[in-house]
Amino acid sequence: MALCESCNGDRKVGTRTERDTMGEVEVPEDRLYGSQTYRSIMNFPIGGIEERMPFPIIVAMGILKKAAAKVNMEYGLDKKLAEAIMLACDDVISGKLYREGHFPLVIWQTGSGTQTNMNTNEVVANRAIQILGGKLGSKTPVHPNDHVNKSQSSNDTYPTAMHIAVAMELRDRLMPGLVVLRDTLDAKAKEFDKIIKIGRTHLMDATPLTLGQEFSGYVAQLTYGIERVCSTLPRLHYLALGGTAVGTGLNTRIGFAEKCAAEIANLTGIPFETAPNKFEALASHDAMVEVSGALNTIAVSLMKIVNDIRLLASGPRCGLGELQLPENEPGSSIMPGKVNPTQCESLTMIAAQVMGNHVAVTVGGSNGHFELNVFKTMMVANVLQSIRLIGDGCQAFNKNCAVGIKANEAKIKKIMRESLMLVTALNPHIGYDKSALIAKTAHKEGGNLKDTAIKLNFLTAEQFDQWVRPEDMLGPR
Amino acid sequence: MALCESCNGDRKVGTRTERDTMGEVEVPEDRLYGSQTYRSIMNFPIGGIEERMPFPIIVAMGILKKAAAKVNMEYGLDKKLAEAIMLACDDVISGKLYREGHFPLVIWQTGSGTQTNMNTNEVVANRAIQILGGKLGSKTPVHPNDHVNKSQSSNDTYPTAMHIAVAMELRDRLMPGLVVLRDTLDAKAKEFDKIIKIGRTHLMDATPLTLGQEFSGYVAQLTYGIERVCSTLPRLHYLALGGTAVGTGLNTRIGFAEKCAAEIANLTGIPFETAPNKFEALASHDAMVEVSGALNTIAVSLMKIVNDIRLLASGPRCGLGELQLPENEPGSSIMPGKVNPTQCESLTMIAAQVMGNHVAVTVGGSNGHFELNVFKTMMVANVLQSIRLIGDGCQAFNKNCAVGIKANEAKIKKIMRESLMLVTALNPHIGYDKSALIAKTAHKEGGNLKDTAIKLNFLTAEQFDQWVRPEDMLGPR
Amino acid sequence: MALCESCNGDRKVGTRTERDTMGEVEVPEDRLYGSQTYRSIMNFPIGGIEERMPFPIIVAMGILKKAAAKVNMEYGLDKKLAEAIMLACDDVISGKLYREGHFPLVIWQTGSGTQTNMNTNEVVANRAIQILGGKLGSKTPVHPNDHVNKSQSSNDTYPTAMHIAVAMELRDRLMPGLVVLRDTLDAKAKEFDKIIKIGRTHLMDATPLTLGQEFSGYVAQLTYGIERVCSTLPRLHYLALGGTAVGTGLNTRIGFAEKCAAEIANLTGIPFETAPNKFEALASHDAMVEVSGALNTIAVSLMKIVNDIRLLASGPRCGLGELQLPENEPGSSIMPGKVNPTQCESLTMIAAQVMGNHVAVTVGGSNGHFELNVFKTMMVANVLQSIRLIGDGCQAFNKNCAVGIKANEAKIKKIMRESLMLVTALNPHIGYDKSALIAKTAHKEGGNLKDTAIKLNFLTAEQFDQWVRPEDMLGPR
Amino acid sequence: MALCESCNGDRKVGTRTERDTMGEVEVPEDRLYGSQTYRSIMNFPIGGIEERMPFPIIVAMGILKKAAAKVNMEYGLDKKLAEAIMLACDDVISGKLYREGHFPLVIWQTGSGTQTNMNTNEVVANRAIQILGGKLGSKTPVHPNDHVNKSQSSNDTYPTAMHIAVAMELRDRLMPGLVVLRDTLDAKAKEFDKIIKIGRTHLMDATPLTLGQEFSGYVAQLTYGIERVCSTLPRLHYLALGGTAVGTGLNTRIGFAEKCAAEIANLTGIPFETAPNKFEALASHDAMVEVSGALNTIAVSLMKIVNDIRLLASGPRCGLGELQLPENEPGSSIMPGKVNPTQCESLTMIAAQVMGNHVAVTVGGSNGHFELNVFKTMMVANVLQSIRLIGDGCQAFNKNCAVGIKANEAKIKKIMRESLMLVTALNPHIGYDKSALIAKTAHKEGGNLKDTAIKLNFLTAEQFDQWVRPEDMLGPR
Repeated sequence: MALCESCNGDRKVGTRTERDTMGEVEVPEDRLYGSQTYRSIMNFPIGGIEERMPFPIIVAMGILKKAAAKVNMEYGLDKKLAEAIMLACDDVISGKLYREGHFPLVIWQTGSGTQTNMNTNEVVANRAIQILGGKLGSKTPVHPNDHVNKSQSSNDTYPTAMHIAVAMELRDRLMPGLVVLRDTLDAKAKEFDKIIKIGRTHLMDATPLTLGQEFSGYVAQLTYGIERVCSTLPRLHYLALGGTAVGTGLNTRIGFAEKCAAEIANLTGIPFETAPNKFEALASHDAMVEVSGALNTIAVSLMKIVNDIRLLASGPRCGLGELQLPENEPGSSIMPGKVNPTQCESLTMIAAQVMGNHVAVTVGGSNGHFELNVFKTMMVANVLQSIRLIGDGCQAFNKNCAVGIKANEAKIKKIMRESLMLVTALNPHIGYDKSALIAKTAHKEGGNLKDTAIKLNFLTAEQFDQWVRPEDMLGPR
Repeated sequence: MALCESCNGDRKVGTRTERDTMGEVEVPEDRLYGSQTYRSIMNFPIGGIEERMPFPIIVAMGILKKAAAKVNMEYGLDKKLAEAIMLACDDVISGKLYREGHFPLVIWQTGSGTQTNMNTNEVVANRAIQILGGKLGSKTPVHPNDHVNKSQSSNDTYPTAMHIAVAMELRDRLMPGLVVLRDTLDAKAKEFDKIIKIGRTHLMDATPLTLGQEFSGYVAQLTYGIERVCSTLPRLHYLALGGTAVGTGLNTRIGFAEKCAAEIANLTGIPFETAPNKFEALASHDAMVEVSGALNTIAVSLMKIVNDIRLLASGPRCGLGELQLPENEPGSSIMPGKVNPTQCESLTMIAAQVMGNHVAVTVGGSNGHFELNVFKTMMVANVLQSIRLIGDGCQAFNKNCAVGIKANEAKIKKIMRESLMLVTALNPHIGYDKSALIAKTAHKEGGNLKDTAIKLNFLTAEQFDQWVRPEDMLGPR
Repeated sequence: MALCESCNGDRKVGTRTERDTMGEVEVPEDRLYGSQTYRSIMNFPIGGIEERMPFPIIVAMGILKKAAAKVNMEYGLDKKLAEAIMLACDDVISGKLYREGHFPLVIWQTGSGTQTNMNTNEVVANRAIQILGGKLGSKTPVHPNDHVNKSQSSNDTYPTAMHIAVAMELRDRLMPGLVVLRDTLDAKAKEFDKIIKIGRTHLMDATPLTLGQEFSGYVAQLTYGIERVCSTLPRLHYLALGGTAVGTGLNTRIGFAEKCAAEIANLTGIPFETAPNKFEALASHDAMVEVSGALNTIAVSLMKIVNDIRLLASGPRCGLGELQLPENEPGSSIMPGKVNPTQCESLTMIAAQVMGNHVAVTVGGSNGHFELNVFKTMMVANVLQSIRLIGDGCQAFNKNCAVGIKANEAKIKKIMRESLMLVTALNPHIGYDKSALIAKTAHKEGGNLKDTAIKLNFLTAEQFDQWVRPEDMLGPR
Repeated sequence: MALCESCNGDRKVGTRTERDTMGEVEVPEDRLYGSQTYRSIMNFPIGGIEERMPFPIIVAMGILKKAAAKVNMEYGLDKKLAEAIMLACDDVISGKLYREGHFPLVIWQTGSGTQTNMNTNEVVANRAIQILGGKLGSKTPVHPNDHVNKSQSSNDTYPTAMHIAVAMELRDRLMPGLVVLRDTLDAKAKEFDKIIKIGRTHLMDATPLTLGQEFSGYVAQLTYGIERVCSTLPRLHYLALGGTAVGTGLNTRIGFAEKCAAEIANLTGIPFETAPNKFEALASHDAMVEVSGALNTIAVSLMKIVNDIRLLASGPRCGLGELQLPENEPGSSIMPGKVNPTQCESLTMIAAQVMGNHVAVTVGGSNGHFELNVFKTMMVANVLQSIRLIGDGCQAFNKNCAVGIKANEAKIKKIMRESLMLVTALNPHIGYDKSALIAKTAHKEGGNLKDTAIKLNFLTAEQFDQWVRPEDMLGPR
């Protein structure tokens, strides 16, 4: 969805004059943005196109501007103007104007997102002017500040967009990825229900469990992860809109905040409501830190699950070899025939990135001052990247790896049978100390448990066979 | 609660012989621990007394051992032994045995906490033996593994203790601190309800608000912080006990897990329940990561609030000077008469520590393998430190700073009146562009808004007085 | 430098068949990549164009393939093929083939970067085939593995590209930004050499210093930051090339590693040398963690410096107001005439991002297994982003803020004169306790130091004037 | 070295009156500290004894106070007083006064460490008064501020103590641990020089290497780690002393800073020098962040090395089983005979802690304001803990694990021989594509490479035997 240099950077186009309180600037005539957007482009040449304001923020801006225009009609905004603004917003929401290059700003601008708010105001105003047959840049009949931004401030619109964008992406991108992977692992847990395998604690052989039980732990982790995200939503659903510049709501009307929140809820299908305290909503972004914390926990879960899977699939001949993963590509440019757990690697790298993003969000969240936190654009960009990477990464992992996981039953059974830790089943019968002696003796002598136990005169062969049964070691009695 | 070298390290005492599956060791005769504790002391001489296993873990171990003994009676454990174990556990829970030096192990032992579980088993067994008149170290009539640890494993007891300890400390140490500080700030918000002051966004003068409104934002942050902690509790209340070695519950009895959870809930007054999935409960500690994430968010809130307070109190003559903080100590060893916001500093340092601890917890949580995460002792130690520091730090800050915060009303009023940002009140009347011109002209010429506005012929003096009224700028119309 | 959807995603083009060891795939006929690149596109639809492999990595790949081709000639690679490969590499190095869309892969692929190595091999091979008049996809006369990747493995080429790319970007992007900002601040330090101002410790008024001295601290921080980066270079200059699959150098020739490093040094002007231990060079990326640590320290420095600057410039009327920053854009969409320290905000957000990236790099670095770390693409992407953001951010901050910083001398002088901390100058004359009494009395009574001191009978007016002279308080006697 | 409650907290002792600029307080009569220490105890009841100011800081304070007293003699401090102060400092340096309970303050005090500086001044003054036969608390003939703190401020002494303490601990605790472990691993690398084993990349079987080569990578990591620490020393050796309150050196004498640094260098044997810029030295602690970054990199290395070792030792029967680690303790309270890699667990937990501490240090370092960073005590406490844990942890790991590592040669040889990745040796002979086909066919059919290659008619048995020789795959030709 990004624009290439040939489309954007090196374009040879005419310009038109746009002006703001600091004077006039020349902007590309085929762009709908105005002077303030242009100043930001000039002032913040940082990082290139990879660093653009995330698309979901632009969509969210479109949604809130549309909602505000509708509510402003109730408070006296000219209906014709309001409707033109709302139509223009539809072109923002659909992505059309983003794809056409009207939202070129980067994350590394003013920390309040003011320039992206103004970018939106300018583009919506000019688009509405187009719709109404006016002249681009004339601010007539639609003024970016007086009409599009009416009853708003960057200080309340941008954090509102943050909450809208994150809530939508959680619902539309994160959750589908998590749920599909959770469900696949759950199906695998059921599929592997009867496969008894060695347990491993401290990486060392332990008592047996089923492969299905092992996978059920992963399912529980993801299920809780979904709950964790849900538990952050009450505070994410609070919208700052109506707080204007410092949280007081100066220059808005009583009821504006509530009506806008209701309209945004209506447009998105998400139960947003106006923030009970607007000062908090502008000055802090603890809700972002909280969501990021939930994503961080999910990253931790994914790291564990995926590490397990690739370790269980290690080999094929010199590793654990209990699982087989799908072969998606040649694995090595030098070792012919090698197949690697590449989907696992992608997802574990994503997990590490999410952990890092979380620290960036934390640092940003802690550095607000007085009535405004000015790490907004960085914070939301990190949260949105974390959401997108987890969401996309889970989908890719699910499709290209999880659904194709197979158990290597022969190998699983073989090594389980050799384990010394089956001795644990003897604890209730002969006590811990004698059981330990059997295991240690067998380990030292390379023998098996049964022969050793008998040789030590701790039990009979019949007792051993009766007491040491892996299939009886899978739960309480 | 720690023991000094003269009490512990350099003690000249006799020894008694304790033995385990690896052989015999000599332990101090006045200590109740046995061979496995002693081996851990010898094998992990890391970090000294500051690195001891946190006391709440030992208490939690006592609670769960007591609960297990009671439940084990139902499944056949000799009543006399069980009661002796329960009495011994009471001496663990009360802190008596900890203070006497029977729990000397450090955090940096085996990552499963096995050695602390065995330390508890050994101490409880020997204490129970004392109670029953037996010989220390004889393992008769109470055996640390066969009786105290009956139906348990380190792998389920230690994570159970983690959840118990964290839940109790959240309730008993974190919450009181958060609540008292929140309530004090709330009282301040009401006290400062009528004090109109300059708002600041981007650190620059902005439209006014009341000092009470500003403080109400802090109150909201802490209120949400409390909600954030609460939202993690459902998963924290799941107990691993009953999972034994790998989560299957081998060597326990059906019902043991549920009954133990109920008994622990009974002993603590916290609604613990048995974990629906024991594999997750042993192999991952996402619940710790989640709680740590809530603490991290609170740290972010505290950093913001306290930074604001010390900036507002900066001066007394060359800073913002809007607040006065209590003087608790001489501030400087070289600058006489200096008073510093030391309580703020302590609490912001705590916030930074909690953010760091959170990363340690995150890294530990992500590194589990198969059926067991072996970063347990480090993880819980960090979470408990974060809880304690926030709890204690909020109490100290509350008592020694927050309750004594005073507004410097004269200074607040003076600078608010000089602000150029009152011009914002003119937006709805003369539009954004003209308002901007007034402010910029006044700034350039050093003039005030009213004179400048009139000079520019944008309005009359009467209009200005009617429109620009700070007391009318505190909310929507 | 990215490609837009109209150029890339939705293109309607024919295809050609490419094959690898897993079979055949259809790739767009106007792309030079082959089957393995295509498989990666299909398997890793994660994050979109913002997540593309950073351009400096592609350049570095071009450099090392060129160097390898040249050295391979010495070991028997056909001269005609080698020269075609080298010409093809020139089109990679220049960015031509990147801009044309032949390197579409994302960061979130296999963690070894194998797919980007193969992407390079495929593109270079096909480009060389073009040069030699062959048929695209035929692997004749230039084979991506047998010729372009000759004596190499992804496992040694990708880490080599990591080191090349990071070293080049440190030199070409980070250093210019740091140096220009350091030099500007140094010039400011000299410019402000005579401006005596209040010092502030604990945010509270302290003894005076010059504004030049204050800025000299910032200069020292950046100078040390430059030294910190330089101190990491010895280990960054080690190249993995020659280690092939696991570090042994299997399938290379003796001397290949050393010659390639020399050739890469020649092509880049950077003193690269072959890594003394290739096992370390593949299995760990501690050098990335180390560089990231230096960047993290620089981020810490920048956060401090820029926070100071915006706090000193806070106001204009209700803040500290000691500095004036350039006005680059209108500051607020609601508060007319507001000017904000937006460049400061961009750079502090960058600092927070770098701190977060550092954690991602740390987590990735710690998770290698055996002969290969497979967090490579994530790690280097974070380091490169940190470099670029700091480099670009410092340039923007320098140009749009630092060079235009002005001192508000009147304000600075006024508040300095009012400070009570000038009392410190009396310590050597009347002792700490009496000095403290003067300051505290003056503070309580709102008086000035001189009158208070005289009233307390601690000294005469003449003594005060002689002893308390801000211009004498700027250094040792 | 800590004091227990029975010694410290619940003591029933008389008191004496101490006074400062804020009034009088009653302190325990058997303690040498005075009013300011006592106020800190009362004001910061945070965290308990585990949170005490680290001992190395107290030692460093003693060193610098001694050096300052000596230098102050040259500038007129009475010789008798100076000598008494120096004797008193010796009792600080030896740890005597720390062990006796005269330094009870916690980390979570004022962020400048002022209270610990005053604690030192008070204790040293009172101890010197004792030596001179005076009355405790009389401040005669030795005054804590006027004499012990002469020409100093907390603002320059505490950061000086930070650098002294960290530099000493790096030398005395970190380096011995790193070096001994590096040397042991180096000896193992040589011992395992001839043991050819399977290589593993992506956790999957790869081409062979020797176990000695594998260990040589670990040795390189630790060797570089040592270099990394050394490369931070130039900036750590800069001392703030002489900067006094804000960095100007007010109230010191010309030459004082340089002479003190020289004397401290003399007392410690470390080449300290006076900081070229004292403003940086007080206002930032980038040197701490830098050192912490080096420790973080070492933590990353240790995590990798130790993870490898425990994975290679996993089993004994169901894991990789290539290494055997010493048995130090019974491994499980439920699974008899289990032996776990507990030393690995301790060290990996330490690594995670160091990564977390690094973030705390980073956050603290970034939050300085103007002339003073007030996260000092937290920052240095984290750096010192990281040093101590790594140092102690490496010693414990070395002694209890590394020196006893044994290779399981039979297992190593067996699985290496079965590997399919030996096929890589065929690349130069038959090309990549054919080699891949052999490996994939053998994998699918469960056959071995030789038979499969012959069956596919790619080579003869003789050729296979000649070309595929693990012992020839260990380096370039």
